This record gives sequence, structure tokens and C-alpha cells, in this order.
Amino acid sequence: MARETEVKTIEWIDGQVRIIDQTRLPNRLVYVILDTYPSVLKAITRLQIRGAPAIGIAAAFGMVLGMRAARTETYGAFRRKFDRIKREFLETRPTGVNVSNALDRLEKRVNGNRDASVREIQDVLLQEALRIYEEDRTTCRKIGRNGAELLRDGWVVMTHCNAGALATADYGTALGCIYAAVEEEKRIRVYVDETRPLLQGARLTAWELQRAGIAVTLICDSMAAWVMQTREVNCVLVGADRIAANGDIANKIGTYGLAVSAKEHGIPFYVAAPTASFDLSLDTGTSIPIEERDGSEITRGFGRRTAPEGVQTYNPAFDVTPASFVTAIICETGIATPPYGESIPRLVKTR
Amino acid sequence: MARETEVKTIEWIDGQVRIIDQTRLPNRLVYVILDTYPSVLKAITRLQIRGAPAIGIAAAFGMVLGMRAARTETYGAFRRKFDRIKREFLETRPTGVNVSNALDRLEKRVNGNRDASVREIQDVLLQEALRIYEEDRTTCRKIGRNGAELLRDGWVVMTHCNAGALATADYGTALGCIYAAVEEEKRIRVYVDETRPLLQGARLTAWELQRAGIAVTLICDSMAAWVMQTREVNCVLVGADRIAANGDIANKIGTYGLAVSAKEHGIPFYVAAPTASFDLSLDTGTSIPIEERDGSEITRGFGRRTAPEGVQTYNPAFDVTPASFVTAIICETGIATPPYGESIPRLVKTR
Repeated sequence: MARETEVKTIEWIDGQVRIIDQTRLPNRLVYVILDTYPSVLKAITRLQIRGAPAIGIAAAFGMVLGMRAARTETYGAFRRKFDRIKREFLETRPTGVNVSNALDRLEKRVNGNRDASVREIQDVLLQEALRIYEEDRTTCRKIGRNGAELLRDGWVVMTHCNAGALATADYGTALGCIYAAVEEEKRIRVYVDETRPLLQGARLTAWELQRAGIAVTLICDSMAAWVMQTREVNCVLVGADRIAANGDIANKIGTYGLAVSAKEHGIPFYVAAPTASFDLSLDTGTSIPIEERDGSEITRGFGRRTAPEGVQTYNPAFDVTPASFVTAIICETGIATPPYGESIPRLVKTR
Repeated sequence: MARETEVKTIEWIDGQVRIIDQTRLPNRLVYVILDTYPSVLKAITRLQIRGAPAIGIAAAFGMVLGMRAARTETYGAFRRKFDRIKREFLETRPTGVNVSNALDRLEKRVNGNRDASVREIQDVLLQEALRIYEEDRTTCRKIGRNGAELLRDGWVVMTHCNAGALATADYGTALGCIYAAVEEEKRIRVYVDETRPLLQGARLTAWELQRAGIAVTLICDSMAAWVMQTREVNCVLVGADRIAANGDIANKIGTYGLAVSAKEHGIPFYVAAPTASFDLSLDTGTSIPIEERDGSEITRGFGRRTAPEGVQTYNPAFDVTPASFVTAIICETGIATPPYGESIPRLVKTR
């Protein structure tokens, strides 16, 4: 399908990182070249690239750029620089675990090549980063196929934020399931919440679904429960930024409210995410760090002041949906259902 | 308190209607003079004035302006003009019942004065409109006192949209309860949802609470459930645009989702409204007409396009919260609790 070649959220091209500047969507499709690690850091912080899998890849490529610029021949100095850059990337977006998981993989390669030359380690890091990128592409396809099994012909799916092509190196996680179902010739219609404050649903998901020719209706976040009460919604399907061992899900703020409404209306609540989004070091979601962002995203989100000067705000970027609200978690290795304490370790082991 | 004299949402001054232009808030406090009924119609349609009680009053004053301009001496022609203008006002905002209730009161005065001169009927209509205005002021105070009994010292109240001074001729319904509790020296803190798409919570409620010195924290609609899960919220308190005989509540879109979340978290869900918001001709809320507004409120709400061109939207301005979610309804005549089929008729009878 056309979209597969059209949306290239992140790529490694001729020793540089090329991303779509997502802050310019939906009005303009602009690519940005990043050729230093600070420029990648900045792109992540500014949300020019976002989505847990995509920023995992971006951090890996960013680390490659940073370490390629290392002016040292000794392993010790190289390693110290690696640690420093890693810390910087970990601080950008604390809630998602994909950055940490990606950089841990690179770190293992550094650790495993103590006797190699700096030049050789630089090559090894690039290979590993490209592997993370390629694996994400394969993972999206597998998640899509697994998730498509849950979606029936004629279904109406509600989604939130963007867990699509713009959040990954391929066609997405939650939206990947929809794309895969459509490839199987199932008719799927989608409601997407605009996803305040940064409108990833309105700006990104509506854009990529429209581009792919999939029927999408945009609503405000506050309308989701009413749509569930009065219109047909067959399932809610979202992505995840971090999943604890018990199945608690950190995802874009608003996800939890959707889950509560889905439960009230007896609507299945599905989460689609790569196993790279699992954090089995956390027993539950209560210890997932929740990024709080500047209140100006709420009070003057689009260049115009929409709240009184000096008003207090609370602007968490994510929330945690307890596992008890989650009907199933769709991964590249299969579909986990409750009890998640048993099903999740099986899915992670098989990756 | 200062706010009482400061916020004059609507007034009849020297044969004209003066309103605060709420589309200019929170950045500027601008008053607009309306001296013809079409200008009142337009102010209601454009949401320069909004809030069920306030637009009931505005419609009454608008009718007075329209009928004062009537160039006829015959009752029949006068009455036909009345009917035509009434239809125009009823079409502006179909969900709230206050416009209809206010104009029904004026209509009764027209009917009861068939033998009077046009000039006399014009005077009678003005008297009735001013009575509606004055009654709303008294009603707000009574609702406030009744509601304040439910609010305890130290409580955190979550509200949605604006049911305050800017929605009434006095200090509001839901916010009136908060103002009254604060007058009783109870410490009350408030979370207000921004209330997309038109941001009445961010623009209006945050503005008037801040002005009144009440601690208010602004959140996005999508954050409400997460705040309930992780922070203290002692009750949800909202207004209503129409209440059916069984206690089903039509109110600003997003109210229903809040009610669902409140139920999930065991948080009481209170509605404050004058008995003029009851529509006992409706057994349930399913037949309340839900106003749908233009999708551009969602796709370019901030003056900038935030969704792709041509995307389909669904933009209901209200939703209906079934009575089973409502802990109590606070009116000027008392507090109704389930079963509402019994308690509501008692409250309406005593008005």
C-alpha cells in the first residue's frame, strides 16, 4: 500500500538521521536532517519526533552520531562519553522505556567489545542501531498481524494519540493492527481523540489514517464516553510507552479515562506495543515516572492565550491504566491476556 | 465579596442589554451593548453570552427588545411577531431548556393581556423579563447555600465548563455552591477541565475563580480520570442545561465522561441547576436534542489548523448523563436525591 513507502518517520541516510518534523504536521510534511547527537536530543525534547518506538530508534541513532564524533582512541574515554550521552537521552522523556531499552542494547555492545578499536566499536554501534530500526519494522508487521485477528470486518475502533507510522519505523503498533486488518480487506472505521494538549490524534493520527484512505472521525477527548454511549464502538485500541510486569500500562494522558469509559460500556480495551515497551523490572505501574510538561501547553497551546495569566496548571504527559482495565496486550510475539503475571513473561521470553 | 459586583454577565440598562463578551475572555473584559433582538440572537449564537440561565435571561430581554420595536397597534399582529421571534430564539441553542422556559413565561403574559394595548403589553413583558433576571439572582444564592451544605472544609472539587457568574445573572449554580462555601469560610480547591472545544473551563471558570481568589488548577479534559486516580478529589460539581423528569442531565460535552470516572472512583457527582432547567415534559434524557456544532471548532479552534483538511469530525456540544450516575441535584428549592422520579417533582412543585 502507498502509505508504506510514504511515511518515513525516521531513517538513517548517508551517516545522518532524517526525520519527519511532526510539529509541522498536519499542515506540512517537512523532513529534517540531524547530524549531531545534540540535534537528536533536541528533536526528541521538542517532539519533532515522538512515539515510544520511534524515540528509541532516534536515541540509538543519536548515540551513534555522538560516538562517531568521539575524539578519542582509548576505550575508557569512549566509554565515559557513552555514559554521559546515555544519561542525556534518558532524561529527555522519562516515561517511555524504549529509549532506555535501546541504549541498554548499545551499551551491551560497548561492554562486549572492550578489546576492539574505537573505530570498530563505532561500526558495531551503528550495526546495532540499524538492527533496532529493522527489528522495529518487523515488529510492527507482526503486531499488526496479531492485532488484526482481534478486529472484525465492519468494526469501529476508537484510538487515542498516535501509535501509528509516525510513532515507529514502520506502520505503527495500534494503527498497525488497523492497517493490517484493512489489508485483510476488513472494513474498519476509526474514531480518534484529538489528544490534548498537543493534539497528536488530530494532527498525526487523523493525518496518517486519512492518507491511508481509512475512514476516520475526529472528536475531542471529552466526547469519547458520549460516543461510546450513543454510537457503535467495538473496541478501544491504543499504544503504550511502558508496560509493567503486571500489565499496568503507561500511555499518553487520557488513555486511563478511555479505559474507564470502555469498562463502563463493556467495550474491549486493547493495547498494542512491542515487547521493547515492557519493563519487567517494575512489578506494577505505580513506579513508572510520569513526565510533567510545561503548563503553557495547556494555557497557550497554539500561539494564543486561552487561560488567564498566572493560572495554576497540572500537565502530566502520561497516565497509567491498571492492568484490570486491559482486555489484551498485542505484541510481536503474541497476545497476552489476564492474568498478565503469567502471560507477559511468556511473550517477553519468546522475543 | 468583590466578585459579586465585578462580574455582571448580563444587565438591562436604560432600555438596552449589556453583556460581557465571553469570546474575549480571559484576555479582555469587554462589554457589549445589544439594542435589537437580532443582535441578542447573534450574541447567543456566537456564544458571546452562554450558560443556560444566562441565555434564558438574554432571550427574555431580546424578546422585549424585539416587541418594543413592533410597529403595530393590533394584538393579532403583535402576537404573530412574538411567535416568530420566539421561534428564532428557540433555534439558537436547542439543548438548554431555559430559553424555552423563559419565553413560555413571556408568552403567558402576552396571552393574559389580550385586552391590553400593545404599549401595555410591552411594559408587562419588560417587567416579566426583569423578574426572570431577578429570580435568577435569588435562585443562584439559594442554590449556593444549598450546595455549600454538601461541600466540606478542605474539599477538592472538580468542575467542567462554566456554571458560574458568567453563566447566570449572579454568582452561578455549580460555582455558586463553591462561592457560598468559601463565604462560610470553608477552604475549597478546584480542578477545572479546560472543556474543549471552546475552552469555557480554561477561559471562563479559571478566570472567574482566580478573580475571586479561589485556588484553581486547570487541566485538560483528558486528565480528569488520572487526577481522580492519583490525587484527592472529593466531588464533581457541574451545572445542567436540561434535566429530564427522571434526573437524566444534559450538560456540556464531557460531563458524561466525568460522571463515568467519578463512579469508577467512588466520587460523588453533584449537579447544580435552577428548577428552570427541568423539563418535566421529558420522561428521560434520550429525547433531549443535542446541538451539533461546526467541526471547525475542533479542527481550527485556536485560529490555526490543527487537523488535516477535509477530515471528518463529530462535534456534539452536549451530552446526557443518565440519572444513575448523579448523586444529587442541587436546586434553589432543595436537594434532590434518588429516586429522582419522586424527589424532582417535589422540588419543582415548591418553586
